[in-house]
Amino acid sequence: MTRGRTLSDLGEPGLIDRISRMARRLDQSGVVLGIGDDAAILRPRKSEDWVTSTDATVEDVHFRWSEQSAFNVGRRALVANLSDLAAMGARPRGFTLALAAPPELELARFDGLLRGLLREAALHGCPLVGGNLARARQTSLVINVLGCVPRGRALRRDGLRVGDHLFVTGVLGAAALARARVESRGGLIRQLPVPRLAAGQALLGLKGRGACIDLSDGLLTDLGHLLASSGLGAALDTERLPLPRGFRRNCHELSLKPLSLALGGGEDYELLFSLRAGTAARIPSEELSRRLGVRVTPIGRVTGGMGITGVPEAKSFLHY
Amino acid sequence: MTRGRTLSDLGEPGLIDRISRMARRLDQSGVVLGIGDDAAILRPRKSEDWVTSTDATVEDVHFRWSEQSAFNVGRRALVANLSDLAAMGARPRGFTLALAAPPELELARFDGLLRGLLREAALHGCPLVGGNLARARQTSLVINVLGCVPRGRALRRDGLRVGDHLFVTGVLGAAALARARVESRGGLIRQLPVPRLAAGQALLGLKGRGACIDLSDGLLTDLGHLLASSGLGAALDTERLPLPRGFRRNCHELSLKPLSLALGGGEDYELLFSLRAGTAARIPSEELSRRLGVRVTPIGRVTGGMGITGVPEAKSFLHY
Repeated sequence: MTRGRTLSDLGEPGLIDRISRMARRLDQSGVVLGIGDDAAILRPRKSEDWVTSTDATVEDVHFRWSEQSAFNVGRRALVANLSDLAAMGARPRGFTLALAAPPELELARFDGLLRGLLREAALHGCPLVGGNLARARQTSLVINVLGCVPRGRALRRDGLRVGDHLFVTGVLGAAALARARVESRGGLIRQLPVPRLAAGQALLGLKGRGACIDLSDGLLTDLGHLLASSGLGAALDTERLPLPRGFRRNCHELSLKPLSLALGGGEDYELLFSLRAGTAARIPSEELSRRLGVRVTPIGRVTGGMGITGVPEAKSFLHY
Repeated sequence: MTRGRTLSDLGEPGLIDRISRMARRLDQSGVVLGIGDDAAILRPRKSEDWVTSTDATVEDVHFRWSEQSAFNVGRRALVANLSDLAAMGARPRGFTLALAAPPELELARFDGLLRGLLREAALHGCPLVGGNLARARQTSLVINVLGCVPRGRALRRDGLRVGDHLFVTGVLGAAALARARVESRGGLIRQLPVPRLAAGQALLGLKGRGACIDLSDGLLTDLGHLLASSGLGAALDTERLPLPRGFRRNCHELSLKPLSLALGGGEDYELLFSLRAGTAARIPSEELSRRLGVRVTPIGRVTGGMGITGVPEAKSFLHY
């Protein structure tokens, strides 16, 4: 057999695009929102939509045993999925787990993974309702999470308008800093993100709310996804980005640029969302924070042109 | 770190039991049926339950590239999931795919997998609604499927009664024979199982129906699961097991025992179900076959004692 192109020839966006195109050939009736958003929405008969999302956590790809406890690997795996529900404004209802592992995996690690998953699940009322175990050379956790939202009301990536104000919950860069510190100085990553479920559900009820996405890949990348859904651009005010306490000092100690981590670091799992200009003008940030139950910071606006402005030397920047 | 016990020390049943026990510590309200059946059931607000199930297909574990086309690997992966819905009497509504693969995977194989999945999906009205791509050393497909059933009516593994009659759809051993032939003579496995969705849904509406399970691991193993759910036994009539056309001759050509394949061979994805004695007496097999849209064969009865009788030398038998 002649050697054809490989997955790496296309890259993930190309592959996802291929999947999307092939999937769209099927009848999509009954599917409110399919491939391409944070989660898919299926419509049951009455008054609510169900939201489902899948995420994988693979050994030596998403985590290393030397850098995190099994417990935290488990928690983090479910956080990534719950965050997708949060970005839809959904309430979690349950999850399934497909766990693959080598027969040589230590039982203590297996137990740790499970305990971490179930701790996070208990915190957010999301019971484990089924699953699958398989043998594999790498350990991996594939989670499918189910949630519900009032019918037709789910937060989505699309629907931005020029002039919309952009906001983020919480602070940015904490996960990247924790990772960098462990890579530089050893030890275990103890930092854990929080899925913003309550904030997402509160946002869902807010008149004048626009689009929403969770920050899994980093602000610039995920903002890029958000903007792409509406074919618009954004002007960021990077002076206003919310940073963790002592962030600049900690970054400088590790010879890292704080802005680089805040803009490019992934796995913060905060929400990035938009409000119509009128709504943003009417509700002060403090009031918005109170309603969403978490600190909310305005970070810029949606513009008509393509691309993101206000970021110094954006291109070289991310590869610092 | 001292080396602790490994997953292989417990085996899959032990691990599943551990997961079940840990999961049961969480609040299960809203979950009609959790870990331990073919699928989990979540209860939406009105008139229907949603059914969800997850299954993994791992390279060199569940399939080999040298033995099956990528297209058939994809089809078979979804069949395994749809079969779980069939065993609940559910109607498919959509599935998500978590695909992990090495960067070196040929694009033609990637495409083949997707085409196979989507062909099977189209046949059964089950659109791909989301997913995830990850890098890994082995190719694997983890599928989560969603379906619905009229509220409270799902077929389950439990609920057998002494005297119930046992039935299977279709024929047994076809998948095992196809695999054995390829292992012995080379070539590709072309045989493909059919998920018995229509039969499951028809069974759901039948008064006097009991328990149901799909045959993924082989009749004896899966019957064992079914019986374990009710703490009962069974008397099998192995003379009546439905076999594929020319099965005995084909088995003898490969020096295989037909009964061994029919009882122990997995991946037939037929349904094994029970009817109350009165119902079974009232409805002849031909009529039952007509109602379920597939050949249905009575193969034995549920008994009070533990274990399965009627199988010659059952223990040595499976290791032929």
